[in-house]
Amino acid sequence: MNKITILIHCKDRSKIIASVTNFIAQEGGNIVYIDQHVDREQDIFFMRLESEFISESFSTDNFKNSFKSDLAEKFQMKWRIYSSDKKPKMALFISKYDHCLYDLLGRYNSGELNLEIPFIISNHLDLKSIADNFKIPFYHVPVTKDTKEEAENKQLELLEKHKIDFIVLARYMQIVSGKLIDKYTNKIINIHHSFLPAFVGAKPYHSAYKRGVKIIGATSHYVTEELDAGPIIEQDVTRVTHAHAIEDLITKGRDLEKIVLANAVKLHANRKVMVFNNKTVIFS
Amino acid sequence: MNKITILIHCKDRSKIIASVTNFIAQEGGNIVYIDQHVDREQDIFFMRLESEFISESFSTDNFKNSFKSDLAEKFQMKWRIYSSDKKPKMALFISKYDHCLYDLLGRYNSGELNLEIPFIISNHLDLKSIADNFKIPFYHVPVTKDTKEEAENKQLELLEKHKIDFIVLARYMQIVSGKLIDKYTNKIINIHHSFLPAFVGAKPYHSAYKRGVKIIGATSHYVTEELDAGPIIEQDVTRVTHAHAIEDLITKGRDLEKIVLANAVKLHANRKVMVFNNKTVIFS
Amino acid sequence: MNKITILIHCKDRSKIIASVTNFIAQEGGNIVYIDQHVDREQDIFFMRLESEFISESFSTDNFKNSFKSDLAEKFQMKWRIYSSDKKPKMALFISKYDHCLYDLLGRYNSGELNLEIPFIISNHLDLKSIADNFKIPFYHVPVTKDTKEEAENKQLELLEKHKIDFIVLARYMQIVSGKLIDKYTNKIINIHHSFLPAFVGAKPYHSAYKRGVKIIGATSHYVTEELDAGPIIEQDVTRVTHAHAIEDLITKGRDLEKIVLANAVKLHANRKVMVFNNKTVIFS
Amino acid sequence: MNKITILIHCKDRSKIIASVTNFIAQEGGNIVYIDQHVDREQDIFFMRLESEFISESFSTDNFKNSFKSDLAEKFQMKWRIYSSDKKPKMALFISKYDHCLYDLLGRYNSGELNLEIPFIISNHLDLKSIADNFKIPFYHVPVTKDTKEEAENKQLELLEKHKIDFIVLARYMQIVSGKLIDKYTNKIINIHHSFLPAFVGAKPYHSAYKRGVKIIGATSHYVTEELDAGPIIEQDVTRVTHAHAIEDLITKGRDLEKIVLANAVKLHANRKVMVFNNKTVIFS
Repeated sequence: MNKITILIHCKDRSKIIASVTNFIAQEGGNIVYIDQHVDREQDIFFMRLESEFISESFSTDNFKNSFKSDLAEKFQMKWRIYSSDKKPKMALFISKYDHCLYDLLGRYNSGELNLEIPFIISNHLDLKSIADNFKIPFYHVPVTKDTKEEAENKQLELLEKHKIDFIVLARYMQIVSGKLIDKYTNKIINIHHSFLPAFVGAKPYHSAYKRGVKIIGATSHYVTEELDAGPIIEQDVTRVTHAHAIEDLITKGRDLEKIVLANAVKLHANRKVMVFNNKTVIFS
Repeated sequence: MNKITILIHCKDRSKIIASVTNFIAQEGGNIVYIDQHVDREQDIFFMRLESEFISESFSTDNFKNSFKSDLAEKFQMKWRIYSSDKKPKMALFISKYDHCLYDLLGRYNSGELNLEIPFIISNHLDLKSIADNFKIPFYHVPVTKDTKEEAENKQLELLEKHKIDFIVLARYMQIVSGKLIDKYTNKIINIHHSFLPAFVGAKPYHSAYKRGVKIIGATSHYVTEELDAGPIIEQDVTRVTHAHAIEDLITKGRDLEKIVLANAVKLHANRKVMVFNNKTVIFS
Repeated sequence: MNKITILIHCKDRSKIIASVTNFIAQEGGNIVYIDQHVDREQDIFFMRLESEFISESFSTDNFKNSFKSDLAEKFQMKWRIYSSDKKPKMALFISKYDHCLYDLLGRYNSGELNLEIPFIISNHLDLKSIADNFKIPFYHVPVTKDTKEEAENKQLELLEKHKIDFIVLARYMQIVSGKLIDKYTNKIINIHHSFLPAFVGAKPYHSAYKRGVKIIGATSHYVTEELDAGPIIEQDVTRVTHAHAIEDLITKGRDLEKIVLANAVKLHANRKVMVFNNKTVIFS
Repeated sequence: MNKITILIHCKDRSKIIASVTNFIAQEGGNIVYIDQHVDREQDIFFMRLESEFISESFSTDNFKNSFKSDLAEKFQMKWRIYSSDKKPKMALFISKYDHCLYDLLGRYNSGELNLEIPFIISNHLDLKSIADNFKIPFYHVPVTKDTKEEAENKQLELLEKHKIDFIVLARYMQIVSGKLIDKYTNKIINIHHSFLPAFVGAKPYHSAYKRGVKIIGATSHYVTEELDAGPIIEQDVTRVTHAHAIEDLITKGRDLEKIVLANAVKLHANRKVMVFNNKTVIFS
């Protein structure tokens, strides 16, 4: 049994849904999941389908070709089709904070994540032993003012060599370059330790403390050129009071960060996220 | 422009989605919303569609007939089709608590609710002035041991006369009879002041206080013969501490009750709820 | 039985708690509630006490005098003492939105609020009938560019005449002048329809929609000269998805606004809020 | 500088707070934290204090003796006094689930927990490698019908030898015996994977799925003889929909379990929990 996931978006028109479902039926597929959304402001149609094909002669490549010529061109669709038997490959970028790392590797180990982690990159050696314990290859790529370009080339080389599908910055404390962002557009997931768009940039817990907010948050988003301004995938919040010092916010925030990042990673790895005009459509 | 909402459930089979979308296309409709769910435990397929028909000759009755003969019988579907221009009629049953009443009538007044309220029934006179202020007809139907059947007949008469589609028990402090439940199956919405299935029955805040829970809740559900055991439509919770006395739980709970009930009413009135095997499927 | 509430803040020093509790014991009082907080960053001590006095000769004024000379001066305390038998007087400022108004008046009517509402001021006539229904005097004080100062004087006159203790802007769609703010510092409560400091200013739901946030919020704060930048009293949030249009955010937001504002009003009316350096300490 | 934490409860009487604060002042202490609660239903007074003593001659034992004779006996207090420089010792009991284990050990490693973990006991060998990675001694104590008593004696021996202060059952899949409960009353913390008192006993996620709840939860409580009926320390919940299969509830629930258990462990280790009449008072 072959199973594929189809993500489509295009200008909204009548009969799209019937055309797509019809096409899949003609190709011998059975739709097991369908969800759609229309952005009325921008008049854009979004759809996500999962379809099963029993025929042994089914080929994802052939299906893609027919889909393109028979359907996608007619509606001028942007589309992606994934075969369910191919797990996406995720690279982990880390620095010195270990909570998101432990959390993701714990989930990975227990089989909760539908992905592969070919390697971990860090600009520091502090967390190497954790990677070793989980038996994930660890590359130390230090980043200094002078070695920035060299480091980036090393990163790109590793990403390409391992055919990485997406990158997760698990509290990686470096600005990612435009070159990397261009190559992995909407494929680099960051966790920011505030409820965006509040408290962009460095030290958000300090800013939240100073402003006296009663709720703090964490936000996972795709990385774009503008700092902390990319499409938001997932957010969560927790209550705080005057009695919480900055260190308390940091401690409470860690629990938000790891859960929010893990949820964003799962949504992305399960091909449930579409991006349009700096916003996400999430078919969960 | 005619707009209809279709709700379907049947045993899961292949090609249902394509068959339905195809049928609608043939009838000249454009699908503007589709959502589906398969209950894998019970092998049941659920679907909700909204479709628009431009043709002036479109008739909902004709569509229903074709739908039944050409599609529903083949898949042995249970189905309901609603015309969007017909607002459902809701009867409000109340007793002495006013918070849910104020909340629902405030929303009704501001146009937030897609429904009509032909009348309010109460077994007490306490809240009559609120109904008067909002200019909703108010019927006082007292219920005592001796007048129970008479009261019920009076209620049924009013419900039928006004062609009521569904009933909302807004903290109505009486057990509804089996006769009413049979006639309005999955059409009587209750608000229970606990996080069901915890604290079934009377005085749930007292029980929650006694048990020392750290979170209290409210649950809106369809009324069935078994007390507080019907299909759950909506639930919400809020934190409490040891410092909250029973009266504090009651006060905090009121805010949950009114929001949860209003959300359940909106889901039902917008035909987003399906019931199967004492559980709800909610296409929101 | 006399009951008083004492709020204190001063530079942190040793022995403050023992000194205060000792003083109250000497005066014949029994402490029934005590809570304290030390802001370690700024080295400021905060305390809230409730104390009962059985003696018939007890006088709040005498107590205040002794408190001032025997205790407050020694520690250079800022302090406030309230008698529990005096309910604070709240003025309601409204414009055209009715949800917060209905919610507050519903609570007021049912005895949930420990306060009096001598009158409602509005710059429009739209909601007069609601005030009438609840039998609260309603003053129409229109505000235009030309009449701004005149309107303000009318407001001040009413506030003074009725000995108003604090003002609640229940979606009052006008900027309050510096004169009013100076006279009622930390006594004007506003509800802003966003999760501050995100989306300051006009049309926050539109901004939230545009940014694609996954959670929206509401914030109640004291009004200061800088727009939406005053001390935060209470905040709450709710989840949204890509499927929510701007109108959905507005509808969902209304439920947040009314609950958050009501909670802030209750905290203030029960003398549980202290303000220092643009932040609140809330002893709840 | 010596710092102690004092927990007190007794029948409510007047002048308790003044008496305690006075006593501490006389002993040369400075109160840096005070919180109190009166259970009006049962007329019980609870208090938690933190006090610092600068004098080099201060001895916690001497203080305890004075406290007992000069104060506790007069008010017939139940009391506990802890020296802040003594971290409590926690034994971890586990079986086969690793998520709570990873989470607690990750926090332990990063210094978030104010406690020591002298050893881990498991009735299975599956998670030994995790204990090894974190360098915590691991004891395999298998439990079968025939070896139940022997296993328990082995457990008690380890607990006593290491002077364990409290036990955490991190998804330990065995019923703990009455002997252990008696010896560690209100010192055995369990995590139950439901929102208690809903879904007591085995397979709560299956029961939640069957009931069709819209919110699932997790509860951390002290173990008592009656199953899942002990004093609740902490609870949390998360939303689910009809689209979540049982495995989804289990996955989502794991995130609740680990956060709720960690919070309960921190509250207990920081001596913030008091138990009375099967309920907790939590001074957080």
